[in-house]
Parts: sequence; C-alpha cells; structure tokens
Amino acid sequence: MTGNGYMGFRGTLEEFGKEQLAAVTLAGVYDQAGGKWREPVNAPNALFTRLSCNGKRLGVLDAEPLSHSQELDISCALHKRETVYGISGGELAFTAERFVSMDQLHVLVSRLSLTATADCRIELETGIDSEVWDINGPHLYGLQERHTKGVLLAEAVTGELGLQVAVAEMTTCHFEAGETSGEGGARRFIAFDVKAGEVYEWYKYAAVYTELDCSEPAESAVQNIRTAEAAGYGQLLAAHREAWAERWKRSDCVIEGDAAAQFALRYSIYQLLIIAPTQSEKVSIPARGLSGQVYKGAVFWDTEMFMLPFFLHSDPATARNLLMYRIHTLDGARRKAAEYGYLGAFYAWESQDTGDDACTLFNVNDVFTGRPMRTYFRDKQVHISADVVHGIWQYVAFTGDDSLLADGGAEVIWECARFFYSYACYNPVKRRYEVLDVTGPDEYHERVNNNAYTNALVRLTLEVALQSAELLRAKYPERYEQLAGRLAGGPFLKEFREMLAGLYVPQPDPQTLLIEQFDRYFILEDVPLAELKARVIHPNEYFGGGNGLATTTAILKQADVVLMLNLFKSTFSQEVKQANWEYYEPRTEHGSSLSPCIYALVAADIGSPDWGYPYFMRTATVDLTGESKQYVGDLYIGGTHPAANGGAWMAAVLGFAGVLFDGKVLRVQPALPELWTAVEVPLSLHGDSFRLRVSREEITVSAAAGNREALKVSGCGSRDQLCQPGAMLTLRTAGAAGASAAE
Amino acid sequence: MTGNGYMGFRGTLEEFGKEQLAAVTLAGVYDQAGGKWREPVNAPNALFTRLSCNGKRLGVLDAEPLSHSQELDISCALHKRETVYGISGGELAFTAERFVSMDQLHVLVSRLSLTATADCRIELETGIDSEVWDINGPHLYGLQERHTKGVLLAEAVTGELGLQVAVAEMTTCHFEAGETSGEGGARRFIAFDVKAGEVYEWYKYAAVYTELDCSEPAESAVQNIRTAEAAGYGQLLAAHREAWAERWKRSDCVIEGDAAAQFALRYSIYQLLIIAPTQSEKVSIPARGLSGQVYKGAVFWDTEMFMLPFFLHSDPATARNLLMYRIHTLDGARRKAAEYGYLGAFYAWESQDTGDDACTLFNVNDVFTGRPMRTYFRDKQVHISADVVHGIWQYVAFTGDDSLLADGGAEVIWECARFFYSYACYNPVKRRYEVLDVTGPDEYHERVNNNAYTNALVRLTLEVALQSAELLRAKYPERYEQLAGRLAGGPFLKEFREMLAGLYVPQPDPQTLLIEQFDRYFILEDVPLAELKARVIHPNEYFGGGNGLATTTAILKQADVVLMLNLFKSTFSQEVKQANWEYYEPRTEHGSSLSPCIYALVAADIGSPDWGYPYFMRTATVDLTGESKQYVGDLYIGGTHPAANGGAWMAAVLGFAGVLFDGKVLRVQPALPELWTAVEVPLSLHGDSFRLRVSREEITVSAAAGNREALKVSGCGSRDQLCQPGAMLTLRTAGAAGASAAE
Repeated sequence: MTGNGYMGFRGTLEEFGKEQLAAVTLAGVYDQAGGKWREPVNAPNALFTRLSCNGKRLGVLDAEPLSHSQELDISCALHKRETVYGISGGELAFTAERFVSMDQLHVLVSRLSLTATADCRIELETGIDSEVWDINGPHLYGLQERHTKGVLLAEAVTGELGLQVAVAEMTTCHFEAGETSGEGGARRFIAFDVKAGEVYEWYKYAAVYTELDCSEPAESAVQNIRTAEAAGYGQLLAAHREAWAERWKRSDCVIEGDAAAQFALRYSIYQLLIIAPTQSEKVSIPARGLSGQVYKGAVFWDTEMFMLPFFLHSDPATARNLLMYRIHTLDGARRKAAEYGYLGAFYAWESQDTGDDACTLFNVNDVFTGRPMRTYFRDKQVHISADVVHGIWQYVAFTGDDSLLADGGAEVIWECARFFYSYACYNPVKRRYEVLDVTGPDEYHERVNNNAYTNALVRLTLEVALQSAELLRAKYPERYEQLAGRLAGGPFLKEFREMLAGLYVPQPDPQTLLIEQFDRYFILEDVPLAELKARVIHPNEYFGGGNGLATTTAILKQADVVLMLNLFKSTFSQEVKQANWEYYEPRTEHGSSLSPCIYALVAADIGSPDWGYPYFMRTATVDLTGESKQYVGDLYIGGTHPAANGGAWMAAVLGFAGVLFDGKVLRVQPALPELWTAVEVPLSLHGDSFRLRVSREEITVSAAAGNREALKVSGCGSRDQLCQPGAMLTLRTAGAAGASAAE
Repeated sequence: MTGNGYMGFRGTLEEFGKEQLAAVTLAGVYDQAGGKWREPVNAPNALFTRLSCNGKRLGVLDAEPLSHSQELDISCALHKRETVYGISGGELAFTAERFVSMDQLHVLVSRLSLTATADCRIELETGIDSEVWDINGPHLYGLQERHTKGVLLAEAVTGELGLQVAVAEMTTCHFEAGETSGEGGARRFIAFDVKAGEVYEWYKYAAVYTELDCSEPAESAVQNIRTAEAAGYGQLLAAHREAWAERWKRSDCVIEGDAAAQFALRYSIYQLLIIAPTQSEKVSIPARGLSGQVYKGAVFWDTEMFMLPFFLHSDPATARNLLMYRIHTLDGARRKAAEYGYLGAFYAWESQDTGDDACTLFNVNDVFTGRPMRTYFRDKQVHISADVVHGIWQYVAFTGDDSLLADGGAEVIWECARFFYSYACYNPVKRRYEVLDVTGPDEYHERVNNNAYTNALVRLTLEVALQSAELLRAKYPERYEQLAGRLAGGPFLKEFREMLAGLYVPQPDPQTLLIEQFDRYFILEDVPLAELKARVIHPNEYFGGGNGLATTTAILKQADVVLMLNLFKSTFSQEVKQANWEYYEPRTEHGSSLSPCIYALVAADIGSPDWGYPYFMRTATVDLTGESKQYVGDLYIGGTHPAANGGAWMAAVLGFAGVLFDGKVLRVQPALPELWTAVEVPLSLHGDSFRLRVSREEITVSAAAGNREALKVSGCGSRDQLCQPGAMLTLRTAGAAGASAAE
C-alpha cells in the first residue's frame, strides 16, 4: 500500500479495476448509501492502465505472464511492478512505477514503459476508471466525464452529503502515438507500433480534490494536474523523496543485531507514515488506516492509545492534528452523551467526520443463525472518552504545548469528566462512586462492573480535569473564564473533586498482587485457552457477544488490566506488574491486534524482554504475514493494522529501549531482547530534537545544537543529569559490568 | 393428577413403571445427584399392580384393550380406570380406584377389581415398585426391601442429604388366593382362578414417610399402614371425601351461565387444592406443583404473586404456611445476597428446602449450538425479594394476623429492604435512587435499568419496612427491640426513609399515559408479534437470553407494566390502565403461563371483561388442553401450572367479580363477561367467613353467623355499608337499571 494521509492507494496492479478491489480511499470523506454502514469514499482511479498487443489484451488476469514482480520501496513509498508477457514472436516487458506524492498531497503519479523483443502493435487503454469498488456503496452519483485540452476529468457528488469529488488526469507519451477518446468520456485509447528492442515510456499525472478541500474541486484538480505535468515526473519524484527522507529522519528506529525485527519495525513505521494526517486537523487515523473501507473507515481508541505515542515522539504536529480532530468532533460526543441521557461528552466508539457514532448496536452477525447480534461496543465502551482525555493530556505534558487546552482541549477534558460524573453512581453502602455496566478493552466481557482499566482511566480523567483547570486559569485566564463559565452550573470542579475522592478503582490484592479485571471476574470459569478453542464449532464464530464462548470464562480478548498497568507503570511495583502479566497472559486470546504489543511492553518493563519478544514480532509482522483475524462472525475485518504498527514502535522504543518521558525527565530503562545489541531512535521531546542510542553497555543521548533547553536524563534509575543543546550524554546501563542502579 | 400437598401422584395407570413416568413426588424432599440439577425426590410407587391372565400379561402397554376409560373426580381427587381386555373365550374387565388421602397425608389407597366372562387363571404382580423414574437421578440409594407380617417395606436413603425414605404396603384380597413373594423382595405374586361372572376385589394400602417427618420413617410407615388397613378402604375414603368437601366449601367458585368456564375454573382450583401445603410451613408450592421434577421442584415468585390470593381468600392457614416457608428460608436468601456482595436478603429465584438458589447461571441451552446459555434469572431478577415482602404484607393486611411479623415476617421485610438499599445506587446528577441492571417479569429483556415493575415493588418494600416497624414496635415492643437491635448498625429505617424519598419509579407519560417498561424500552424495535414469530428458525428456540429474537425488540414475554398496574390498581386511573393494556397487550408473547391471567384481570378492571375473557379461558384451561409451552431451548418444562391455576381464580374472583379487600373494606366492582350471569364465591376475610354473589343486577354479601366483626362493604363505588355477623347485604350494581355509582 502507498498513501500520504490524504489518500491511500492499495497495492493493486495498473490493469485492476473494481473486481480486483482497486481503490483510492479518501481520508475524512464519508458517505452512507441505502441504509448500509457509512464508510469512506473511494475516488475514481486515475492510474488505471490496460495494454493490448496485436489486438489481444495483456494483463495478469488475461494471461499467465512469463514473469511478474512487484516491489515496494518503503524508504519513499514507491510501488514498482515489472511483468513480462509472451507475445507473437517474442516477449514484451511492461513496467510501472507509481507514488502518491508526500510533497503534494492531492497528486498521484506513475511512470510506465514497455519494450518488446518482436515488433507489435500496442493499444493502451488508460485514463480514469470511474467504476469504483465499494463495500457499502455506491457513493458517487451524477458522474460527469470530460476531456478538455488533454486533461481528463471525472466529477461526481457523494450521495449523502452531496460533496463534489473530482479527479483529473493527464497522460504524456514520450513517443509517437495516435490517441482517441473512448465512449466513456474519461478514457484514452493510445495506439502505436512497437519496434523490437526500443523502450516506450509514458507518464500519468492525477489529482484528486473534494469539496472538503476547496469550493471548486474540479478546477483545483485541473489546475493542480497541469502544474504537476509541467513540473514533470522527475521533479515530482525528487520532492516526494525529500519529504519521505524528512519523515524517516524523524522516525526511523534502528535495531542492531536483528535484521528481521528491523525490517518488521520499519514496515510498521512505514504503515503509519503513509496514513498520518500531517496537513489536516479534521481527520484522524482509522482503525484500518487508508487501506480500504473496512471498519467503516472509523477512528477508534486505537489512535490515542496505540498510535499517538509514535507521533508524540517523532512528529508532534501530526500528534496535535490527531487531538484537534477530537476537539472538532466534541459536538458529536455531546450528542451521543445526550442520546443516552448523560451529561458531557461520550465519544464515538467508531468516529467519522462529525463525531457521531458510526458503530451500530448490531456490529457482528451470529454465524449460527445469520442474525445480527446485539453487541455493546457503542453504548458501554465508555473508556473511549477517557482515552481521548489521556491522549490530550499526554500531548500537553509531552510537548509542553498547552495551547491545545486553550484551543478546545480543556473543554473536551471537562466534558468527558462531566460525562463520567453522570455515568457513575454512588453506592451509599460502600460509600464510593462506582462505574457500572461498562465494556472494557476486553470486549469478550460486555456490561461488567468496575472494570479496572475503565475506573483507572476515569480517575485520570477527573485528575486531568482538575489539573487542566488550574493550568488554564493560570496561563489563559480569559479563556478559562469563558469556558468554565459555561459549565458553572455543574457538575464541574467541585463535583469532580468529590467523585475523585470517593471513586473506587480496583487495586492489587495484598496476597496475590492480582488486580481483578472487573467485579466477579475471578469467579468465571477458568478454562485453558486451548480447551476453549477446542469448543469452537464454526471457524468464524465470535467469542464475545450474546452467547460467545469466552463470555462466561476468564479468557480475555486483549490486554485489559495489563494495558492499565502499562499506562500507569510508574505507580505499580514490579511485583504487581509481573504477577498480573503472568496471570493474564495465558488467559489472553489476542482476538484484537492491539493486544500483543502490550504484553511485549510490560514484559520489557518487568525485565523479561524475551517473554515480550515473540509478542513484539507478532505485532510488527501483522501486516507482513497477514496472520491476523480476517473475520468476526461473517464480518470481514482485513486491511492494515495501524494500532499494531504503533504498538510495534511502542514495544521497541518504550518497551525494549525503555524510553519514558513525562514532560520533565527522560528516563531510560532498557531491556533488550537477546538478539538485539542496540537500538537507536530520534526523539522529539518538548519541541527539541534528540537521538537516543541504547546498547547493552550504555545509553547515549545526543541533543541537537538548535535545542532550546537542556534535557534532564536518568538512565536505569540513576540520578538526573542534564543534556545541554548540542551535547552528548553517555550513561552506563544497569547491565554493564560494574554498573548498578545505585551508582 | 392427584395429591394432598404432601405428595403428588401422577395420572398414570396401575401397571405403569419408570418408563411410563409413574411418580410419587414428595414435597420438600430434594436431592442432587452427579452434579446435575437438584430436584424433588420421587418415592417408590406402592400402588403398582400388574395383571396376567392365563400366563399372558394384561395391560394397556401389552395389548390393545377392547375398551379403556379413565376418570378423575375432582370433587374428591378420586382417580378411576376401567379397562376391558379380550381373553381366551371372552372378556376381562379390570377396574381401579385410588386416592391420596386428604385426611391422612402419608396414605395412598386403592381399590381394584376384576370380572371376566370366561373362566381364567389370574396372576397379580403387585407391591412396591422401587424402580423410580427421575429426571436427574438416581436419588435413592441402599434400597432395602422387606416383607414382614403381610407388610411390604421399601427403605432407601437420599444421596445428598442421606435422608431415609420409607414406603410400606399392604394388600388385602377379598377372595381366596395364593400369594408368594418375588425375588425383588417388595413384590407380591397373587394367583387365583376366576370364575366367569364373579367379581374379585382387592385393596392396596400404602404409606410414605421420610426422615423430614420423623426420626424412624420405616416404623412410622408400617404403623400407619396397619392402622389404615384396619380402618379399611370405606372409612378411609369417607374421611378423605369429608376433607375434600371442607376444602371445596371454602373455595368453590360458582359461575352461572358458562359451563365451560365453570369446569375450567374448578379444575384450576382442584389443581391448587391437591398441592397446597396445609400441614407444613417448611414447604411452599413449586412452579409445577407436585406433578413431577420439572423446574427442579423449585418455588418461584409464582407462589406469592399468583397463588397466594386464592389461599388468602379461602384458606388463610395455608397462606400463612406459604409465607412461613419464606421466613424459614431467610438464611438462604441472606447467603445469596452476601454471595453477590449485597446486604440483607436476596431470595432465591428457584427456592428449595434451604432457600439457597437452585437456579443456575445457565438455565437454558441454545438450540443452535447445544451450548448452555448464560441467563440472568438468578442474579438479576431481584424483584423476587419484593414479591416475598408483598406476599407477607398482603397476608398481614388481609387476615389481620400480624403475628406473622413477630414470627419472622418483619425480619424478612427489613432484610429485603436492606438488600434493595445495597442494590440500588444514587445518581448524583438526577438526584435520585435508581435500580439498575435487573431483570423484570419480562425475562426476554435481561439486565435492564429502572424496570417499572421492579422499582414500584422496591418502593413498596421500603414502605412496608417502615410500616411494619411501626406496627411491631406498637404491638410487639420486645420483639421489635430484639429484631431491630440486630440491624441498628444500618442501613435501617433512617436509610429506608431516605431511599424512599428519593427513589425513582417510572410514571405514566402525561401525553400518552404509557409507563415505559424500563429505560429505553420505547426505542426498541417495534416489530409486530407475528413478524417476530416469522423470524423463528428452530421451533424450540428461546426468545430471550444472549441472542434471543425478542431481546432487541419491544416484544415481551409476559405482563410486566400491566402486572404492576394490577398490583397497584387503586393508584392508577382507568385511563392509564387502559392505555397501557392496549399498548402492551399486542406486544406480549405470553411465553409464560403467568401472563394471560393478568391481561384478564386488568381488562376486567378497566370495564372490558370481554377483552379479558379469552385470556381467562386460556389461563383456566392450561392444564386441560396441554397447550402450554413444552420446551424452552432443549429444556422440557411441561407439567401442571399452579400459577395459571391461581391466575384463573384471580381473574374470575378479583377480576370479573371485582373483589378487592384491603383488610378494611370489601370493595366489589364486578365486570362480568358476556356469558356469565353471576359469580358466587366464599370468602375468608380477616378471619371471618362470607359468601359473595355477584350478578348483573346486584351484589349480595352474606356473613356467617359466627363472624366476630361487621364487614364494611362498598359495591361499585357506593359508600361503605356494614354487613353484620349473620346478616345479608344486597347492593345494586352499577349496571342495574336505574343504579348509579353516586346512589
């Protein structure tokens, strides 16, 4: 897959169309058709190209090629294919190279060529393929195709919102050819005679605009495509490469000693870079990135909890965009809270453009009856609001950029706290606030009481609500008065303080050190995972929902308590973290791709990186092996896994390299897996740039010369040391000979 | 079926055994075998008798008889059969008449005879059949069979509790015969020559005792059987008839003008009389009476809410026994509350001898997968505790016998109130107590919030807790101090008052007058019942549970809001009752046999008895037509339906005859169905005896001469009039010519 955050382009071949699931998936443009699920819009594909040789079609679907190769250069998101076909009297080699420009986000470009060992007559059918593949479409209506002064243009409007979508295309041939337009309007038919041994090369330029970008998308697309064509392929590619080099410079993580892990991690980072919304604060990253319409193109907690850390450490501006998206969708969250009779903001479990919830009450079909199954993702997974607060607060602490609070972040935080105040209830016998009837991260257990993860995050929300109020009042007093004034009727700070003082958050048992995932979890059937799997009747049956196999057992879908321990790692002892890791790990089914990375992270945290290494590799290779779940019930859930991609980065950098920055001190507590000799990673901390290198012997922090502040660093529990701008600081690791934590 | 409250005897034939499901089901004796459901114990069958003629077995299972008839005399629970078999050279007529003595509760008796049109040789195999049929057995171990001085004795002990069970038998023949004992020990083989035209008669006497009755059940059984045999069949039958006459005198309800309704109602009353625990306060009435082991022989809310009214009006002593059973099982209810982390008493959804809950968390199997389905009968149907309180308070108000409170009733009430105090939670935003996460009577909707029925009953519980405290303090001050002292630590009266003041109970919408069954019920899919049924895939699929068809729709299993309206009929306007009847009636699937009677009752209440009449007939004929649900999932739920039997009585007397006694005034507001010209029924009110006759023109109340007090009577809303002991009071009905409510 390639992409640039504005659009994603699937790794299909030039001659592929709708049936082969070719798609140009647009970020943030959603449409609902015929009462089906709302999903992202795919644009017409302007890179479509089909060959015929001597009147016979050439393409991998038409004839078995003599050879075929495809290549993806992840250093710059360049997709290449070379296919050799047998033709009358010889062979014909066809190559195509394409990219979605990282420099000009609306532009796609490709360079195509052919050469043959025998003379032949070639016809190219190229232009814009407006036959768009959709899962729940069609989404584009009133298609108009034009050919004006060498530019093909396809225009349409989306069904629900009536948004114009325009795609323009130009093709330039570096050889003599006769071109005719087809009946369809946006097709070119280019015919020419090929001489054996000569190379025939041509270029395609495409531009995509929608009414979300500008008021006249067609004009912008045409203008943009003319400019691009004038610049030419070489210049466009150079600018694209440069933009990619900049991205990698800020984010590449080097693993020494383990080429497989290195490749998998880089592939994971690549997946994040091609979907990062670098230029828009109106979109965030969907659970399947821009790889298609799966999961409705919706944004889940995945972004804040699994992807945000990568962007915080490498690209804070994009991290800010991700959080601004939540600020822009606050009204949707307010509507959802009101719908359920609560105050404040209840963020969408599946968020699209407005923040209204795209999640249905029947998100999975029962494989045994084919009937929709009532699930409680939408209405009970209240932790989403706390996850958003956690993300905002992480950003503010991490970057020091508290303007986000004034720009709406504080309002989001307070509205989420108000939501929890209205959701929680007071138990007069136990004299405490409880959070009842929720679904935690472990979605196999719906509607549980006092989920440890949820309650801990609710507590954080209340704390952050109080702290952000203090911060805003001190630094942006006018803004504070304005925002706080609206909430003065309460519940507000007074109620938050009361609730915080009385909130029940499950704690480790003094004997076993275990934290119960939710009330009465420990009395569930404690069946071994293998035995549970032996009970499966249908390969795609969902383990959760109404009658799911796991629901009445202790088997969990994904890290829940352990995820909470990772979020609050500084507040729990190693013994507690280890006891819970050991207890929950064998009981985790990893039915979510979000799960394994957390076990890797906490394994590293408790000094057992080799327990975590297989989980890291599983996470980092999820989009290489394709070994993820493809179905939940009869619902297809394939595509890329950005949360796992982010999780792979977290496991490597925050886990094995042991990076922990709280906005004040960079603490480094490495725990490298057996194969790894060192990890090196660039870090953007509080707006300054650093390189960190962690080996078995030492920790080295290099500060960029242009940094504004000295950074406090602590390695393996040593006392804080300052790393001045332009300086390099070296610390001995705990594992190095003679070193000790007390040193 | 026959029975006497101590045991039930199914309507099987004399020659039937285990395979034909013959059973002598004992009230209150439970056993668990092999991890299966705990269920009532069936005793060995001492009425077993098998005939052979000329060496060939005669029985309906062995040969097609020439004729066969069976008859049940419900005036005295006498079962008769006559079967004519073809034999070599002629016919043989076999008759058997039997009863379970209502006079001597341990005794069963039968009279058998035969006569033939051709000489033949007969062998009787009779005695005690210890091959006991069980659903989840075996329950009897260490069987010992003895033959001592003409008495056969079978003794065994139950597996779980080791309770001795003893059955003794005597057979006396009024003719010459040779008898030998069989190898089995407890069998007799009686051979004799039959002469054509002569009648051969013999008698069987049996007695059943368990260790719950006395310390030496075998001795008691033998002694009892000898006494019975000495008294003889005629005397035993006469005493039995007399006891039955007394029962009917107190309870027979005469319907004039509708023979079908009359018969169905009498049959319903009969079903209640054969299972009423007249002599024991340690047992109550199971949901399937004593008709077998279905539903684990467990006692549900059925008793308090559907059967108690019949006993309150006809047999207050038995009503008291039913409530004492709840007092005796309070500790079980306390254990259940503690198990779930609550205070006070959470009564068992399925109660047996100890009050511990026999209900499992997996009460139904999914027909599609065969897997146990998690249901929430046990842990969420909290209204059971309120139903018990309602029953106790009804008894006290109705009979004036407040000694029940001192005998433990007050403790039950307070513990139930304490339970609800700990179950409810306080919503600080809405400033009210709410009862969340419950299952109401409509079990198709599990885990709902603020179920109107449940919340109204919780309010009643709190009110009764306060009122009973006042009453006890005033009349039994020492007992009050003793009981209240234990609860002084709270929550107690102060907290009950607070909760009562702040409790949310759903009210009629001012516009539509509808009461929402629970929070967000009105937004469920409003599918017509027929359409829902058209979605059925498997004939036995359960509509509730995890993925049940009805769970996400507005279709309800049984009366829920309408049941609440019936319980609190004086506090709602006719308009509210009518609006809710009309709304909920078409949405009710009547998946419970408890449902139709409530629609009949409320139809009468709103002056539309003919809307209710079909529901009355459906209720009253449930055990005549056999048209009740036989399966829930793959669980057999057949048997008799005492709650529907009680419901039929309620519909006739409290519904159509319009009887409402609040302990002070007898209000009569008749609404007779079209066919009915009058209803006449004996009533026991506040310990005094009355006969009420309601016709279309007038209401007549006759007070027994021995009554202690004058009764206040109000007919059709007239002002109260006094009916003195021995007097007869006649009131014109609202429907009578010239009569009016204001008259």
